[in-house]
Amino acid sequence: MGLDDPQETAPTRLRERSDARILRDYTPGIQVIGGCTSMNLSSDWVVGFVDGEGCFFVGIQRNPKVSVGFQVIPEFRVVQHQRDLDVLHALKRFFGFGRVCRNHGERWEYRVRRLEQLKIIAAFFERNHLRTKKRIDHRKFSTILRMMENGTHLEINGVKKIARIAASMNTGNRPRLSAILDEDRVHSDAKAPDEK
Amino acid sequence: MGLDDPQETAPTRLRERSDARILRDYTPGIQVIGGCTSMNLSSDWVVGFVDGEGCFFVGIQRNPKVSVGFQVIPEFRVVQHQRDLDVLHALKRFFGFGRVCRNHGERWEYRVRRLEQLKIIAAFFERNHLRTKKRIDHRKFSTILRMMENGTHLEINGVKKIARIAASMNTGNRPRLSAILDEDRVHSDAKAPDEK
Repeated sequence: MGLDDPQETAPTRLRERSDARILRDYTPGIQVIGGCTSMNLSSDWVVGFVDGEGCFFVGIQRNPKVSVGFQVIPEFRVVQHQRDLDVLHALKRFFGFGRVCRNHGERWEYRVRRLEQLKIIAAFFERNHLRTKKRIDHRKFSTILRMMENGTHLEINGVKKIARIAASMNTGNRPRLSAILDEDRVHSDAKAPDEK
Repeated sequence: MGLDDPQETAPTRLRERSDARILRDYTPGIQVIGGCTSMNLSSDWVVGFVDGEGCFFVGIQRNPKVSVGFQVIPEFRVVQHQRDLDVLHALKRFFGFGRVCRNHGERWEYRVRRLEQLKIIAAFFERNHLRTKKRIDHRKFSTILRMMENGTHLEINGVKKIARIAASMNTGNRPRLSAILDEDRVHSDAKAPDEK
């Protein structure tokens, strides 16, 4: 990343201070605070960027260690090429939590998995509306978070209900979730909410 | 949004009112004006969305009808799945020009090609800074627009200079542009500006 890396910690020497100035000059939106650099993001910018690049994802994994046999893993993520690692770190600072880690190869992601933090993310996008159809995924994602708060994911019918909603989301996760639903489709009375 | 949308004005007929309500309910940010619908976009949202989905592209095509033998075609575009056609139309309304047309298959694009309009687009992103490395493409794109204003594209060395800058942009157009540069690489003294 070189000069564009906003992770740079407080430079104490002149050369580093000079680097910070170069960074600020070449990187619009970069702010140098006490030698540290940070990229200012507005709520509207974050909504626009997530409309383009964000993903509300709900995975369901087999896990014999939990009584119901399946673990529901909701996740919010934004994936970028490593050239834009600084934007992922800026998102992390914007929300105040989450992780920046490698997705695969040269792709990195800003990722949030903790339920309490995901609720904050979901609430943010309730106040700041997505413009693309991703808002429908956001709505379904919020529904699943509420179901998990109520313990729906702790019984098999609840997992199936969640899987059915998750499979209706636009995240490319349908085949895997469908396999879970197919296991006991006849007995399932789970229904996705009436959302288009 | 729903009933809270202060932007809504009264549609005149009942059916339109009904359609508008459905649309409004399912589409936060939708504004209903005299039965027509429009989505409000802020500058920051547009910057965030273009950081994710936008493309500053410079194509160069052989064209025996122009004296230099090549035509430089700069283009700004945002491609979306057809499910988000309304967002592309909202971008067109936001800028006040451009076209929404099919890209391929189920993909559609908002596209601007006229030099005067591209200058307005470029100026918008000079006032409203991109946060991703796409800002580098924007800068190179602006440079090429200025070169075209000065007629650089009307002579072969100018075309080569433009091709070299365009080939350094992150638009997947390098092989095609490289072929143009390779034609007469030995005699070319064209240099890309010192931008990383």
